[in-house]
Amino acid sequence: MRVSVIGGSTASAEIEAIAERLGRLLADRGHTVVCGGLGGVMTAVCRGAASSNGRTIGILPTDRLADANEYVTVPIATGLGHARNALVVMNGEAVIAVDGGPGTLSEIGLALAFARPVAGLDTHDVTGVVAVEDPEAAVAYVEGTVE
Amino acid sequence: MRVSVIGGSTASAEIEAIAERLGRLLADRGHTVVCGGLGGVMTAVCRGAASSNGRTIGILPTDRLADANEYVTVPIATGLGHARNALVVMNGEAVIAVDGGPGTLSEIGLALAFARPVAGLDTHDVTGVVAVEDPEAAVAYVEGTVE
Amino acid sequence: MRVSVIGGSTASAEIEAIAERLGRLLADRGHTVVCGGLGGVMTAVCRGAASSNGRTIGILPTDRLADANEYVTVPIATGLGHARNALVVMNGEAVIAVDGGPGTLSEIGLALAFARPVAGLDTHDVTGVVAVEDPEAAVAYVEGTVE
Amino acid sequence: MRVSVIGGSTASAEIEAIAERLGRLLADRGHTVVCGGLGGVMTAVCRGAASSNGRTIGILPTDRLADANEYVTVPIATGLGHARNALVVMNGEAVIAVDGGPGTLSEIGLALAFARPVAGLDTHDVTGVVAVEDPEAAVAYVEGTVE
Repeated sequence: MRVSVIGGSTASAEIEAIAERLGRLLADRGHTVVCGGLGGVMTAVCRGAASSNGRTIGILPTDRLADANEYVTVPIATGLGHARNALVVMNGEAVIAVDGGPGTLSEIGLALAFARPVAGLDTHDVTGVVAVEDPEAAVAYVEGTVE
Repeated sequence: MRVSVIGGSTASAEIEAIAERLGRLLADRGHTVVCGGLGGVMTAVCRGAASSNGRTIGILPTDRLADANEYVTVPIATGLGHARNALVVMNGEAVIAVDGGPGTLSEIGLALAFARPVAGLDTHDVTGVVAVEDPEAAVAYVEGTVE
Repeated sequence: MRVSVIGGSTASAEIEAIAERLGRLLADRGHTVVCGGLGGVMTAVCRGAASSNGRTIGILPTDRLADANEYVTVPIATGLGHARNALVVMNGEAVIAVDGGPGTLSEIGLALAFARPVAGLDTHDVTGVVAVEDPEAAVAYVEGTVE
Repeated sequence: MRVSVIGGSTASAEIEAIAERLGRLLADRGHTVVCGGLGGVMTAVCRGAASSNGRTIGILPTDRLADANEYVTVPIATGLGHARNALVVMNGEAVIAVDGGPGTLSEIGLALAFARPVAGLDTHDVTGVVAVEDPEAAVAYVEGTVE
């Protein structure tokens, strides 16, 4: 399945380690990661997926493919700025939020508006987001939502 | 100034009364209301503004101007679906959130991402949103943010 | 009615004079001008409309209202880059093209895709565009398309 | 390299045969096809690419991945309607236009606005589009533009 992973473009080493483990797990389970293609959590989750030869789609706010982080295997330029956040969550069957600031909050809102299941790792405390303990629980949750 | 008012497309009578009073106040103070152009809080705030001959810009998710509520004075079609939420908050100098569900949550996140001040009336409890008691306090807050 | 006027962001003095006369005519007839809000033909048509106190909606590619030319009465920020071209033609009931380069060509294509009637003044020779002699004929044509 | 192939959502059998051969050629040469993901020329070029195990990115106007034709290997939902045309051409390093109506014309305009080289097969006669005789010449042209 496709899983959108959302989170901030800057993150602590601890959060990046979580995102990287999440990316590896998703790739190990055969899932494609969709993300915003930039830094922080986005780079970390792509690096993790890359370490298991996973596929990662990076939907960029800019119109330049070169802005994608080096681990994105399918960069998509949009030139839409923050409006591209809708595309990031629309292209996953489920969403995992990791940490994050206002942009991530907007993506959580959009994910819920598109009726996507959302698991949360150390992220905004929002009704509709299922808080989970670790990457393993996040992947188990999103897999359980798709029958 | 331009003030974006965000809130759900369905709302209780009590919430609609608050939104309507907010719209009238904004118009009385000479402000333009920007909103998503549809029902619920959006219709109520436009009806309030219209009662004081205020200007209201309705930025629609569809590509049909006819989808705007009857009180919108400047409908703008976008055809962008939920991605238009970015435009709703981008076009105000400040934002007032009234109640609302996931779509409103996404607009709060986008507003903060665009560094807009956000006042909240009975809405999501989010860091960065200044909770206010009533429409008068909301208008006072957003006016105070622009010098 | 709303009429979208499309044309290049740079233009010769002769083309600007045509665009300015077109803007004045549209305003005199009570129409609202929709355009891309920037320079060249866009500034000229807005200046013409302003000289008759007409309303002009400028749908900008950037996310900054301040990027609108000084004659736009209702600037709309989008942050969509060239993708905003779809919004420029979608928001008019009919379209008048004046001169213009690739961006204008894309707007002609989009206008036809949205089934808008298109009059052309010294512009691309495209099937579906009705070439007219002068601003008066352009206005007469677009008025005749809406019953 | 990535090559955007644009053309109508309905096409004659002859045009579809050209598009299919073009898709096969692009895949044989190791290129990724970017297109709008729907029918007609888009389906034909993806079917051709699929016959040589090529990769095809389909950037859809709707918000449903299921709307992609069956030969698309990487569908991308946008929910942007015609505004997604900008993304189709932005994501290729060069563009090949095959036949097509107003939507294709808009993509040609956008491609030129993004300074992409454009080869044309039985398509709109537009300044800036290099008319070519057959799919082989189209591929040779776009390969020659990228050094």
